[in-house]
Amino acid sequence: MKLVRLFEVKGKFVTFEGPDGSGKTSVLKAIIAHLDQAGINYLETREPGGNRIAEAIRQIILDKDLTEMDARTEALLYAAARRQHLVETVFPALEEGKLVLSDRYVDSSIVYQGAGRGIGENEVAQMNNFATDGLVPELTLYFDVAPEIGLQRIKKHRQSEIDRLDTESLGFHQSVHAAYLKLAQQETERIVTIDANQPLEKVIEDAFSQLSNKLPVFFR
Amino acid sequence: MKLVRLFEVKGKFVTFEGPDGSGKTSVLKAIIAHLDQAGINYLETREPGGNRIAEAIRQIILDKDLTEMDARTEALLYAAARRQHLVETVFPALEEGKLVLSDRYVDSSIVYQGAGRGIGENEVAQMNNFATDGLVPELTLYFDVAPEIGLQRIKKHRQSEIDRLDTESLGFHQSVHAAYLKLAQQETERIVTIDANQPLEKVIEDAFSQLSNKLPVFFR
Repeated sequence: MKLVRLFEVKGKFVTFEGPDGSGKTSVLKAIIAHLDQAGINYLETREPGGNRIAEAIRQIILDKDLTEMDARTEALLYAAARRQHLVETVFPALEEGKLVLSDRYVDSSIVYQGAGRGIGENEVAQMNNFATDGLVPELTLYFDVAPEIGLQRIKKHRQSEIDRLDTESLGFHQSVHAAYLKLAQQETERIVTIDANQPLEKVIEDAFSQLSNKLPVFFR
Repeated sequence: MKLVRLFEVKGKFVTFEGPDGSGKTSVLKAIIAHLDQAGINYLETREPGGNRIAEAIRQIILDKDLTEMDARTEALLYAAARRQHLVETVFPALEEGKLVLSDRYVDSSIVYQGAGRGIGENEVAQMNNFATDGLVPELTLYFDVAPEIGLQRIKKHRQSEIDRLDTESLGFHQSVHAAYLKLAQQETERIVTIDANQPLEKVIEDAFSQLSNKLPVFFR
């Protein structure tokens, strides 16, 4: 919580979590359309967020030749890119009082690297605390979907651009799913779970209902 | 200490710490000459240790154009390079039972980034614990030199190749010095302080005396 002492966070930080195929990006689009219409000052972002240092780090992470990369090295590189994105993009927007919507944040590292790659959730969480200076989202919408359904949706929608995580085994995605559920149970104040097994229309409806409940100033 | 559970560390891990200009690299050379003569199986190394991932990370850290780099981003990148060096070089050598001598290790990050750059020593130490899996040196030789003397020696010996840290203010080097002294006071079991204000011959003599006391198998 050192950040809060460094400068007064005036904005609201909201994150969107869940596997690819959970519909979270479509929901984000619907939310942004609403915010545009309502004339609300927001920032929509996702890591690495376009800054040059994080992009350079990302090139190392995504280099498929570097198969010798250790899981902890990878987790530290993601955290370094996250840090730079926070400093250059997220912190300034929060300082200006903006509503900041981020597609993924620390929870993704906890479940994909802590659980999925087997480093350990607590260790990844603690290390990321160094990167974030203790910035915890005001609210996290977690889009919960059964791994089989999520994978089916991915295969359907983008047959050409399957990335590394998509090609992981079903077992990997089941570990990630279990870790998301555990996080949501541990942090009931912050994380709201939305049933993303439903049709997209219903998922969007539930997301708006939660947002107007938790952040009525922005979502009436 | 998770590492110790992962595999039995059979070798000995010894690190050399102190500012540039403290003579530690000259001492290392003398030690290596001794080990070669005695036919002892050792590994001499320093980060990033020649592996391609750590070299790629180092290129980002040392890129002088990237002036926007945050101190925590830099610390995370150093830790990522350290992790990969441990996995590719140090862990295997220790597993083979070698004596591993490393020119700098976590203590350097604690004093230069934790104290020098003002992130905080404990925070940098804890974050590095993620990178090292708890691998603490068996013995650390800390070459203590007054900041003024260390800087004078650097200026004398390499007028052409002054790097970033050399050009930091005397105040920076004084913070680093104070942090080294604090570490040595906190960890009297692990860290042995050698008075490096003395002439080099005497510094080498003191180092050998400490080594034969602490690691008699290798230094008789």
